[in-house]
Amino acid sequence: MAGTDHTKPLISAGPAVVLVHPQLGENIGMVARAMANFGLDDLRLVSPRDGWPSDKAMSASAGAVHVVESAKVFESLAEAIGDLTYTVATTARMRDGFKRVLGPEESVSNIRALQTENQNCGMIFGREKSGLTNEEVSLADEIVTFPVNPAYASLNLAQAVLLMSYEYFKAGTGDTGGLPFSGPQFDIAPKGELTGLFGQLEEALEARGYFRPIERMAAQKESIRSVLSRPGFSIAEIRVLRGIVSSLDRFTRDRPRGEGAPKHEPRRAGKPDND
Amino acid sequence: MAGTDHTKPLISAGPAVVLVHPQLGENIGMVARAMANFGLDDLRLVSPRDGWPSDKAMSASAGAVHVVESAKVFESLAEAIGDLTYTVATTARMRDGFKRVLGPEESVSNIRALQTENQNCGMIFGREKSGLTNEEVSLADEIVTFPVNPAYASLNLAQAVLLMSYEYFKAGTGDTGGLPFSGPQFDIAPKGELTGLFGQLEEALEARGYFRPIERMAAQKESIRSVLSRPGFSIAEIRVLRGIVSSLDRFTRDRPRGEGAPKHEPRRAGKPDND
Repeated sequence: MAGTDHTKPLISAGPAVVLVHPQLGENIGMVARAMANFGLDDLRLVSPRDGWPSDKAMSASAGAVHVVESAKVFESLAEAIGDLTYTVATTARMRDGFKRVLGPEESVSNIRALQTENQNCGMIFGREKSGLTNEEVSLADEIVTFPVNPAYASLNLAQAVLLMSYEYFKAGTGDTGGLPFSGPQFDIAPKGELTGLFGQLEEALEARGYFRPIERMAAQKESIRSVLSRPGFSIAEIRVLRGIVSSLDRFTRDRPRGEGAPKHEPRRAGKPDND
Repeated sequence: MAGTDHTKPLISAGPAVVLVHPQLGENIGMVARAMANFGLDDLRLVSPRDGWPSDKAMSASAGAVHVVESAKVFESLAEAIGDLTYTVATTARMRDGFKRVLGPEESVSNIRALQTENQNCGMIFGREKSGLTNEEVSLADEIVTFPVNPAYASLNLAQAVLLMSYEYFKAGTGDTGGLPFSGPQFDIAPKGELTGLFGQLEEALEARGYFRPIERMAAQKESIRSVLSRPGFSIAEIRVLRGIVSSLDRFTRDRPRGEGAPKHEPRRAGKPDND
């Protein structure tokens, strides 16, 4: 989706993403893209199967070239995580052993907490086909697994990295939720604005004989007021509604299509037609 | 990643995923896969550019064939959402207008709440290149945008669907967090287990003259006890540690490599070598 703002600085720093024996360059590129989306840039590759550098990784990164170009390659997982103090191993399979199993959200909140103590953290991801071996998992501090449909649990590599990166980014965004923009403030208009609308609308309707029989007028007005009170309109929205009422009230629709924009000429007198 | 359990029932029901003018069959397939990962199966396509059905979608779905095969095709977005009562439009760009802007988490929690009232909900996604038009956005109830690195905000279509589906699934998982498995319970062992370990270890060390000078013994024992108390070991972990101590204490290492597994023969008497 569009929306990248190239004037904003790249967010960086964050946990390392360690890919163990990744098979396809395309997937490495998509991992780089997912990392860049959420401000991560420390990509580490343990013996990528098809060698490195990789043109396929570069083209699949969709512009996250800075992540691909600065990726570091290692012979073994132990070397790749040598400078890290806390790592999590991502896996979709239960493992024997003495490791806690966390969801992504809990895990990134641990990572955020450790980072405030200047600890270096990493997230470890296995091969596309078979994930991490038990031996590789044993090198991590904790296990992360994803909440998924148990009948269709196969996340691809870039998607697993995306979810972890997303949760990491989200956990650091505070009150704003890290959204790139926010909607309009819907400050509900003071009631005076709303009664102004009621007055205008009811006068225009009354002028057309909308309220009949006359003994139903009060109930009909209450009904209209209820409909228009419920959404909690803002001043700007009430302005739009009043413009609609003005247009319907004052101008004729008697201009056929194709003769240009209607000129908002005063409507000819006519019969009310509200029912 | 591996781990799909084909014996478990497919989770289904959930919001519709509406793709407006998707361009590439591959992306539609990857969307289907992301939906299946999180138990969604109502895929709706508004005029897919390259026609439908699509072999490319089928092969990119990586087995989420049920989602691809049951996808419904519509001429217009208005038709595609005709039976829905609440929809969100996903976009990475700010829009003018009177719509609230939510993050994914807040949005899926609205959807979950509406579903308890049996309302049909949908999530609308735009074209790969250009997203949704303002006119399309205007048909939705609210806008969803993603917390992303503002300098690299371009999520691809399947990733956007993945994040929304993931948040939707996660919001419905309750206390377990929806994880497919959990780790071992780390019930901290009663202190008697720990003092049993201390006794065994200290006896074995004392037999080797580890504690010296003798007036330092109390402090050295305190230090060992602190180290072993901090992690809050479980009974099973203490059993592993006691086995380690037994092996080190009772057996010799004098078997060279290559002669088969060590036979745990009693160690010959020798000098203590702890410092």
